[in-house]
Amino acid sequence: MKFKIAIIGTGNVAWHLAPALEEAGHTVTEIYGRSEKKAASITQKLYTADVKTDLDFTTSEAEIFILAVKDDSIMDIADEIILPEESILVHTSGSVPLSALGYSSASYTGIFYPLQSFSRDRAITFEEVPFLLESEDQATLQKLKKLAKSLSQRQYVVKSKDRKALHVAAVFASNFSNHMLRLAEEVMARQGLEFEMLKPLIIETISKSLELGAKKAQTGPAVREDLHILEEHHQFLNYNEQVAEIYRLISQDIIDSN
Amino acid sequence: MKFKIAIIGTGNVAWHLAPALEEAGHTVTEIYGRSEKKAASITQKLYTADVKTDLDFTTSEAEIFILAVKDDSIMDIADEIILPEESILVHTSGSVPLSALGYSSASYTGIFYPLQSFSRDRAITFEEVPFLLESEDQATLQKLKKLAKSLSQRQYVVKSKDRKALHVAAVFASNFSNHMLRLAEEVMARQGLEFEMLKPLIIETISKSLELGAKKAQTGPAVREDLHILEEHHQFLNYNEQVAEIYRLISQDIIDSN
Repeated sequence: MKFKIAIIGTGNVAWHLAPALEEAGHTVTEIYGRSEKKAASITQKLYTADVKTDLDFTTSEAEIFILAVKDDSIMDIADEIILPEESILVHTSGSVPLSALGYSSASYTGIFYPLQSFSRDRAITFEEVPFLLESEDQATLQKLKKLAKSLSQRQYVVKSKDRKALHVAAVFASNFSNHMLRLAEEVMARQGLEFEMLKPLIIETISKSLELGAKKAQTGPAVREDLHILEEHHQFLNYNEQVAEIYRLISQDIIDSN
Repeated sequence: MKFKIAIIGTGNVAWHLAPALEEAGHTVTEIYGRSEKKAASITQKLYTADVKTDLDFTTSEAEIFILAVKDDSIMDIADEIILPEESILVHTSGSVPLSALGYSSASYTGIFYPLQSFSRDRAITFEEVPFLLESEDQATLQKLKKLAKSLSQRQYVVKSKDRKALHVAAVFASNFSNHMLRLAEEVMARQGLEFEMLKPLIIETISKSLELGAKKAQTGPAVREDLHILEEHHQFLNYNEQVAEIYRLISQDIIDSN
């Protein structure tokens, strides 16, 4: 089943999703952006998509409208956009509930959330991106499943409430693990040591954790309850009270959950 | 330059290091273990190494003695071990200072620290393992460099003080990033969601972070200062006060260091 799809937004999700949809055989009809230039930078990569800078889609041939904009803008644009009859409006956010589309002119609404971190300069293998889908309309949900299946091997139907939990988990797994690397970078830089030294350890740690599970994979002074080392490290970090407290608190939580 | 080497210890470092030393052309003369069985499980993988259960190495042909035992045992074993003349005693720990070997009978002492997380069941590519070396004796340091070079492309001379900083950084980069995955696992399990869903995100996050640096790679509600989402997530975690506090504190630190 091939769809005609309009994309509203010119950010990193739109940037990667639009050509992937074409490659999967769908037709991207329009790219909407407040900035004509940004929208054109995406349509240039596509066959026949038009640039659009207004939200009146009455004459669009698209059936599915994908809102790939910032979380804060989803509700405003959903309220403003004028859609043809029988159209489906979805957003791509992990943290905005389906109800945010409730006041739109769409006949059907849904979520089409690719659970991945998108950057303009990094290629994305869509085949492995989990798509989290939601709709109160069964026919719409089936269409979203088919659309996701054309891009990826992984589709999950996840309700807004579960998607919120998933977003919390993603913050720990992604944003916070990245911040731990940031804090490691800072300790190394402060001491004039090359961060390169730590990269093989980081790669092995994450590989091991994903293979064995994080509990089994844990090593280090906290899980060994080596209080002497924990105290030394805490002292070492006394130049930054907040980071010292992060060290203390995570170590305590590793001990408590052992 | 090929060395004759005795290994004291039967843990994961000894398990991986002993065969790697042989593959690099060195001779492993003895494996010492308090448990004969454990020592034998390693010598079985080697050509001619003997099992040893006492610490009198007077008649050993080895020149380099590698102490690959628990941090807490290093000083005790260093004090107890009887070494031949002109021998070099090194330990493999990231957190124990060189001075811990100060009362040993060794003519020369040093550090031979492979900066990696070793597990019995996971193969190690020694070529990419950074070896952190230290000795107050220049000839010893040269020998340790040659030994490390025979195993790996990466050798660094790092003083005990810097090695301590490096260990703090490694705790953040490895143990704490692993604990963030653990907390993500728990949020998912609590909600009945498959952790599998998050794996592509984790892999992309870490790859991106190592390529761009963690500051540039950061995404999510904290770096966007989306206080509304941060408050929602904090509320969501109210079933575990300590984890909620970890969420609050790391988010604050991401905001502060932005």
